[in-house]
Amino acid sequence: MTDSVRELALKCKQAAVQVAELSENDKNALLRAMADELEAQAETVLAANAEDMKAAREKGIGEAMLDRLALDEKRLAGVADALRFVASLPDPVGEVTESHTSDKGFEIQRVRVPLGIIGMIYEARPNVTADAAALCLKAGNGVILRGGKEAVRSNTAIAACLRKALRDAGLDEHAVTLMEDLSREAMMEMMQLNDILDLLIPRGGEGLIRFVNENARVPVIKHYKGVCHLYVDASADLDKALDILVDGKTTRPAACNSLENLLVSKDVAETFLPRAVEALRKRGVEIVADEASRKIVPDLAEATEEDYATEFLALKIAVRVVDDVDAAIAHIRQYGSDHTEVIAAEDESVANRFVHALRAAVVMINASSRFSDGGELGLGAEIGISTTRLHAYGPMGAEALTIERFVLRGHGEVRHAESKAA
Amino acid sequence: MTDSVRELALKCKQAAVQVAELSENDKNALLRAMADELEAQAETVLAANAEDMKAAREKGIGEAMLDRLALDEKRLAGVADALRFVASLPDPVGEVTESHTSDKGFEIQRVRVPLGIIGMIYEARPNVTADAAALCLKAGNGVILRGGKEAVRSNTAIAACLRKALRDAGLDEHAVTLMEDLSREAMMEMMQLNDILDLLIPRGGEGLIRFVNENARVPVIKHYKGVCHLYVDASADLDKALDILVDGKTTRPAACNSLENLLVSKDVAETFLPRAVEALRKRGVEIVADEASRKIVPDLAEATEEDYATEFLALKIAVRVVDDVDAAIAHIRQYGSDHTEVIAAEDESVANRFVHALRAAVVMINASSRFSDGGELGLGAEIGISTTRLHAYGPMGAEALTIERFVLRGHGEVRHAESKAA
Repeated sequence: MTDSVRELALKCKQAAVQVAELSENDKNALLRAMADELEAQAETVLAANAEDMKAAREKGIGEAMLDRLALDEKRLAGVADALRFVASLPDPVGEVTESHTSDKGFEIQRVRVPLGIIGMIYEARPNVTADAAALCLKAGNGVILRGGKEAVRSNTAIAACLRKALRDAGLDEHAVTLMEDLSREAMMEMMQLNDILDLLIPRGGEGLIRFVNENARVPVIKHYKGVCHLYVDASADLDKALDILVDGKTTRPAACNSLENLLVSKDVAETFLPRAVEALRKRGVEIVADEASRKIVPDLAEATEEDYATEFLALKIAVRVVDDVDAAIAHIRQYGSDHTEVIAAEDESVANRFVHALRAAVVMINASSRFSDGGELGLGAEIGISTTRLHAYGPMGAEALTIERFVLRGHGEVRHAESKAA
Repeated sequence: MTDSVRELALKCKQAAVQVAELSENDKNALLRAMADELEAQAETVLAANAEDMKAAREKGIGEAMLDRLALDEKRLAGVADALRFVASLPDPVGEVTESHTSDKGFEIQRVRVPLGIIGMIYEARPNVTADAAALCLKAGNGVILRGGKEAVRSNTAIAACLRKALRDAGLDEHAVTLMEDLSREAMMEMMQLNDILDLLIPRGGEGLIRFVNENARVPVIKHYKGVCHLYVDASADLDKALDILVDGKTTRPAACNSLENLLVSKDVAETFLPRAVEALRKRGVEIVADEASRKIVPDLAEATEEDYATEFLALKIAVRVVDDVDAAIAHIRQYGSDHTEVIAAEDESVANRFVHALRAAVVMINASSRFSDGGELGLGAEIGISTTRLHAYGPMGAEALTIERFVLRGHGEVRHAESKAA
């Protein structure tokens, strides 16, 4: 008989207590052993993946999804290397983030501890099974993985390697728990376990994330979408602005940190827009634009209201001419998704106005939105990007899987003097 | 016609944009003006409170609740002083918590920004109306206040003072919004507004908090209960341990940071327990205990399993003799509520084992649990205590009402060199 979802989660909770107490060295050795095991079992994992691919093709699944699902020797080596890379990152657990002595005489520290157990709900990519487990373990947490049905054989084979490394280290393998029951009912059950799970991180399309958020009783970190803007100010260096535009729109249009909207100050629109249109069109970008832009470049298609709120995830961009930085701010407040916003400006006070007025997770001056990524921002690796302002905001690394608590070291201090008379 | 809950919240969101951009000086001046206004309108506020008290007495509401509801000149002066005290605290908004230069050449900072809008749901105490508004505004947030029905006239009078100060400063008064409709339906509607509210903080009994957590779509910070333990180790200085026990149990038994359980190492139980029982009984504490304790002090009542999991909030304590620190840790993991745990021990390795193994929000060595409070721990003021490990853990001050985001300052950097060819 298989365990119920609650029983599985309770076993993971038990195992997580052990993981929370591991030393930095033991955690890193464990992650490296997992990488070794994945490489040793490459044949088994790739055979499982081949079966997933065969079944997916028979179901008529599209090419983009097949590509996300596919593993080969090189990709699998990449997964193992990612585990070793997480091992090389600093350990957030035990970090003292603040320390002072109270006027009462005791010492107060704020110290990072693991969150506990993290539930990951994700779609096709089997590498997430290893990546997410690695970051959760690095931060001293247990993890419950609920992957997509298409990747079930690949995920099972990868999780078996991770669990073997746990057992070999004398640890409880339930610290990494893969959900076997992939029914919607089992997922719903998992999302209600707020007495066991500390956090849910859904990774996938906006539909999945909304579904999880609307049905979960466990707290959820949400990554809705990236409707990212570039505003080119009157003070911009237009060469830089053009580089940033091309990099942000064309180098990986399906990424959430790619640009979806270009706002141009009316003072430079006549100079900048024709150059921008030429550079984008040369790279196959479809452009829709407002009335003012179309007066400057007449053959542009008309942008609808909806275009400005859409995450195209494709070679398409919506363009608008605005009066100044305040008009750009107003537009972004209305249409932005709090992911990443960029200004190209040489006037520092204008740039600072933009940074100050917008509360997106990442705000940039004169740099490509494509840098909005855990690795590029110095987090080492990334378990997700939060677009809501609770617990974590923007790219999340291992540190975001911990929480600061208080440790107080005293010498018998009491709050009321009369207690001393005891 | 009055606004719907959604309309009210949208007005607050609009006003919150303004508050988020206020300078530190402007925010502090606003808080001081609010304090002045409260004092200027003392007569009106006290008259409103007198009406609340009269209605509450007619309803036959108990003395404890009447005391929480009551205001007089001294208490009102305390509310005004609390506003001025929040004005004197450091501003968390804009704080740079990390800064480094990327190998790509751009500068990356993590900077605190306001959360946005915070919903407070609370019970009888009218001072929460001013206290919560002050901390939310200090951190640059709008606030929607949903107080208890018993305090409606007091809360309305206090909120009117706060809103007058906002208007006088030329600001949108909706930044502080008091819910007028106190029906359960309106509260349910408020709790669903996850596209407008960023956080809900319920303050009150465990029933209220569970109700909010189970019905809200907006993220909730939970303060369930404080089942706090003192473990007296074999290495303890028993004089200090006795002081800590008496202070923790008897100085304010209704507070969540008071002790509910005493665990004593078997090696010192014969010496310590008789002294503990005498000191506690002298102060009117009812003691229930396990078999081993009752062998040492025979006239103790028997503790039930339920006693160990109960937050008594009264002069009652459950006692148990344990083998050693590991047995104490196991007991606390089973019965604790992750609020505050204390060890009395002179052996540093034992004390560190206790701190390392337990993940409560506050863990203390040789000090009274009653120091587990935002003011005592150096936060200045406290909007609540979180007993769940997301966003904030333990006492929460103004900083916990902000979130760190990323600001990147570049010079035209792009991620892919070919974008430069634009």
